[in-house]
Amino acid sequence: MLPAKDSLVRHFSVKRIHGAESERITDTVAAEEPLEIRVRYWFKDAHVAESFAVTMRTPGHDRELAAGLLFSENILRNREDLAEIHSLGGEPSNEILIELTKGVDFEGWRIARNGIMSSSCGICGKRSRDSLAQQLPPRPNDDFAISCKLIELLPALLASQQVGFGQTGALHAAALVDLEGGVAAVFEDIGRHNALDKLIGWAFLNGLTPLTGRVVFMSSRSSFELIQKTAMAGAPVLATVSGPSSLAIEAAREHGITLIGFVREGRFNVYSGERRIHSE
Amino acid sequence: MLPAKDSLVRHFSVKRIHGAESERITDTVAAEEPLEIRVRYWFKDAHVAESFAVTMRTPGHDRELAAGLLFSENILRNREDLAEIHSLGGEPSNEILIELTKGVDFEGWRIARNGIMSSSCGICGKRSRDSLAQQLPPRPNDDFAISCKLIELLPALLASQQVGFGQTGALHAAALVDLEGGVAAVFEDIGRHNALDKLIGWAFLNGLTPLTGRVVFMSSRSSFELIQKTAMAGAPVLATVSGPSSLAIEAAREHGITLIGFVREGRFNVYSGERRIHSE
Repeated sequence: MLPAKDSLVRHFSVKRIHGAESERITDTVAAEEPLEIRVRYWFKDAHVAESFAVTMRTPGHDRELAAGLLFSENILRNREDLAEIHSLGGEPSNEILIELTKGVDFEGWRIARNGIMSSSCGICGKRSRDSLAQQLPPRPNDDFAISCKLIELLPALLASQQVGFGQTGALHAAALVDLEGGVAAVFEDIGRHNALDKLIGWAFLNGLTPLTGRVVFMSSRSSFELIQKTAMAGAPVLATVSGPSSLAIEAAREHGITLIGFVREGRFNVYSGERRIHSE
Repeated sequence: MLPAKDSLVRHFSVKRIHGAESERITDTVAAEEPLEIRVRYWFKDAHVAESFAVTMRTPGHDRELAAGLLFSENILRNREDLAEIHSLGGEPSNEILIELTKGVDFEGWRIARNGIMSSSCGICGKRSRDSLAQQLPPRPNDDFAISCKLIELLPALLASQQVGFGQTGALHAAALVDLEGGVAAVFEDIGRHNALDKLIGWAFLNGLTPLTGRVVFMSSRSSFELIQKTAMAGAPVLATVSGPSSLAIEAAREHGITLIGFVREGRFNVYSGERRIHSE
């Protein structure tokens, strides 16, 4: 593994061409590096370690990313399931080890996964969305209500805390916002699923899951896997700057998530769970 | 598996809110459905079938997607490696079977992959970019040259053939363009990696690989996995509407790919392989 440089961006000398003119400039681009996540777990009386995933991500907050990914996969359910997380080979590192406590059924998770690989789907090895639905927690709380005013404010709240996007235009961000407009955390990554995993992992590591009283706001489109992660984290609302996919809408409706899209310029679309939105 | 509806988009009734006003509208969104790809192969004297991947994709051109994915994975190298591809359970379907001819070493590929899963990285199970580099074909031809004029024309050439983007703003497109500005094919998908897999799979099925004399143009950002697929297909140039990641630039420079980004409004940036670009 190559060492990671712990920053969101990298600088490259490139040639910019405009008609007959060209100039050499220094361009700032989003950092992308592979992260290998290894898991050490107990199987009967053996302490076993193995590779769990290699994911391309923007370096930084790798502990949150790894914890969030295992939480979204339903392997980590409670803070006690996690013995330790540490980078391998010193920091910065592109390898991280998660140690599970005895009693966490990692082997059972492995058996439930019957595929070999995925091409960017976030649900690899699972046979269908039906099998995904089975592992979801109870529906998020219906008492939760959010005002139109707060939804309209979300882009400004996020923009005030996004570091990397302004430099590159290529980093996604995920923010956790409370009903008073407080931004508890923002994480950025080249992959929107990673940004959300970092956010959920951060919440998990800080004892804030389930996210029953918060709104997840993202700078991206929404896809099925984002709904799945939102549902696993117990968050009642996912709002995004761009639009949802068909399966994101269907999954949000099935699982009682309020899904909001195209939150920009003082307007937005509600795709699911209108009951949680009030005009005051 | 649920049946797929064979179209790029779906329609949903949603609530649009703008300040104190709201209206019910019909919104058109990009279709997303899971596709299970199964592979039947020969291992010693046994004819074995198993699940290869479940990928979220926009339905349509599933044969091209499946073939492109196995081609990018270096499992399918020549047209003769492929015995048959067919949908399971009738069309439209969310399940497809690829039959490999005897002698294709699928088991070897399995062993080389040592991980369990991926989170949207496109390289799951691989330990590092070093192991990725090993399977790449020879560097693409250095004789290939493309004019600035053609590069500037690419967005207009693509826009003229993109069906789904105008309706949703959420579908990525991959186009294969020749040096005369002819667009051989355009494929759209909610995932940029899928759009490229469909394009490469189409070329493979039609005996057009390696893509030595063509330019791949995409509506998206570029990431490491897009460079990997471009390199596997033998295409000398990848140009995109948005920008590259750091690892896309590094991989393009390593593997002799000309990487162009931010192709819009008559200008563009060259991140790698300037030698292939001429001003005439």
